[in-house]
Amino acid sequence: MLHIEREIAEQPEIIGELLEREAENTRRIAKAIREFNPAFVHIAARGTSDNAARYAQYTFGIHAHLPVGLATPSIHTLYETSPNLSHALVLGISQSGKSEDVCRVVSDAREQGALTVAITNAPDSPLAQAAEYHINVMTGPEVSVAATKTYTAQLAAVALLMTTVVDQAELTQALTQLPAYMAETLSQADKIAQWTERYRYMERFVVLGRGYNYCTAFEISLKIKELCYIIGEGYSEADFRHGPFALIDPGFPVIVVAPKGKTLATLADLVTKLGERQAETLIISNDSAIIKQGRKGMLLPSGLPEWLSPIPAVVPGQIFAMRLAIEKGHSVDAPRGLNKVTVTR
Amino acid sequence: MLHIEREIAEQPEIIGELLEREAENTRRIAKAIREFNPAFVHIAARGTSDNAARYAQYTFGIHAHLPVGLATPSIHTLYETSPNLSHALVLGISQSGKSEDVCRVVSDAREQGALTVAITNAPDSPLAQAAEYHINVMTGPEVSVAATKTYTAQLAAVALLMTTVVDQAELTQALTQLPAYMAETLSQADKIAQWTERYRYMERFVVLGRGYNYCTAFEISLKIKELCYIIGEGYSEADFRHGPFALIDPGFPVIVVAPKGKTLATLADLVTKLGERQAETLIISNDSAIIKQGRKGMLLPSGLPEWLSPIPAVVPGQIFAMRLAIEKGHSVDAPRGLNKVTVTR
Repeated sequence: MLHIEREIAEQPEIIGELLEREAENTRRIAKAIREFNPAFVHIAARGTSDNAARYAQYTFGIHAHLPVGLATPSIHTLYETSPNLSHALVLGISQSGKSEDVCRVVSDAREQGALTVAITNAPDSPLAQAAEYHINVMTGPEVSVAATKTYTAQLAAVALLMTTVVDQAELTQALTQLPAYMAETLSQADKIAQWTERYRYMERFVVLGRGYNYCTAFEISLKIKELCYIIGEGYSEADFRHGPFALIDPGFPVIVVAPKGKTLATLADLVTKLGERQAETLIISNDSAIIKQGRKGMLLPSGLPEWLSPIPAVVPGQIFAMRLAIEKGHSVDAPRGLNKVTVTR
Repeated sequence: MLHIEREIAEQPEIIGELLEREAENTRRIAKAIREFNPAFVHIAARGTSDNAARYAQYTFGIHAHLPVGLATPSIHTLYETSPNLSHALVLGISQSGKSEDVCRVVSDAREQGALTVAITNAPDSPLAQAAEYHINVMTGPEVSVAATKTYTAQLAAVALLMTTVVDQAELTQALTQLPAYMAETLSQADKIAQWTERYRYMERFVVLGRGYNYCTAFEISLKIKELCYIIGEGYSEADFRHGPFALIDPGFPVIVVAPKGKTLATLADLVTKLGERQAETLIISNDSAIIKQGRKGMLLPSGLPEWLSPIPAVVPGQIFAMRLAIEKGHSVDAPRGLNKVTVTR
């Protein structure tokens, strides 16, 4: 069995454990956030962790009414200065906790008096040490170079922190169902292996999402690039209409992340337009109408609330990328040119 | 002559006029910003204008020490709520001023008491009306669907606003040289037409930049996608090392935006690594050593300060995309599937 296959399968259990184990610690952090009363949230992250930051933009923006921006770490490392972060809640997200630039944003912010929280898989790492508070995703070692279980655990940590800050019964209750939603998604996703062969010679792709699932579009795109060496891009469905839509010609493969919720109507409209251009659409959804519009469908649990959907919705994408890399005969657990820890300044 | 060819050539003159005409108005806006004393800057934009927002992240972050985040407009339109923007300077950037979602962010922010500024090419547009202040880039009509002169004019407007807020003689003085830098870049760029044929069958690409020129990487990537229908992606050089580097195989075309400045060393290191993987590198720079490392070079003026470099540095990319679209026999002024004004919710 491949490491990545095992790591994908572990996700429901890891998230269940994380939600229990970090509950008390997160209550302490949420109390500190309410007392600090930040004007905004500023998140430093790279690669896959940056997609966890994108999830935080929507969850904190919509439910906690906090504006969330992504940091520009080179301001700290290469230009050797810092914006004024003294009114900010600053999050640093990194699997290894070793990214020099992410650490630097957090330590600069802490010096200025910002409230700092790290989310890592490594409590002894420089990033975990640099921040005042730490959420340990504790997924166990991730052996495969491409991140899977650490990504969904980071999203679960963001969801846990947000629900604890907001403290609304409906959100808290929904979060307890997350491990079950993950397990149900995994059991449905078995079917994906039956048709990934079709895409053996796919040479380009785009992945579209919107709102909460903007991050899912980016993360699925990253997995396909890392594992299958195919060039493609994740897009907000709105940005895609502003220019990149010109790319679409007959047969162009487009993965659309469109769970039930506020973004479904505009995504369904785009899928219709993609159909007019004879694109090949692969739909990740729990809405049967949009699934029928696509050439291939990947199913999500029916009762899944939209705000939680990015955590299960990435799973079919992880499996699709892994299966396609296997069809192509690639070294799936160790893609060419990559190391598990990437240190960037 | 193509409209886009004329519009690219007009850029030095338009920027010269903009810097003079908007100087007084911008002083008034800068005064309002200093009085308001924002905790952070929040920018709503789509497509090309979003790349102008990326330029603002670095210029305002480094020189005005203001943290700058990009808005997530669907929070306002699809999810029908808003983060608390009352402590923010909120900028809305749009050529047409008609993007419904960008307007909505600005009007929601203004209602909450934020300081709002629109940058458009249309003073009567909904966006210009929604904001308290307006900077008119006044480029004249842009007939080509792909934005060129309106993009560099938006960047110039951002640079003018930043230098007026910061009020340092060195920055203000450098900005007066911008039209001359643009003219010099254009005269050098004539040579690009001699070798674009080489890329007639290029099927994928990436564009890399860092810091100030993160925006340039995104904007050149967008132009190539829009005009040439080739899939590719703009990246921060740091994010590229976290995963997408696996894409690189012999012959993979990589455009590297690497002017003299703080980002040059890390980009030169990456160009060496790309060389080891036998990638084909096209370098936009004013540094002769890195130009020599690449298969093709596109020259920038030698005295250009890094913070201003994104405005000339996109020009060789605009010309490359246009020439390649001509080699491919495409309808350059009206790419398939696009309209000049894209209204997204």
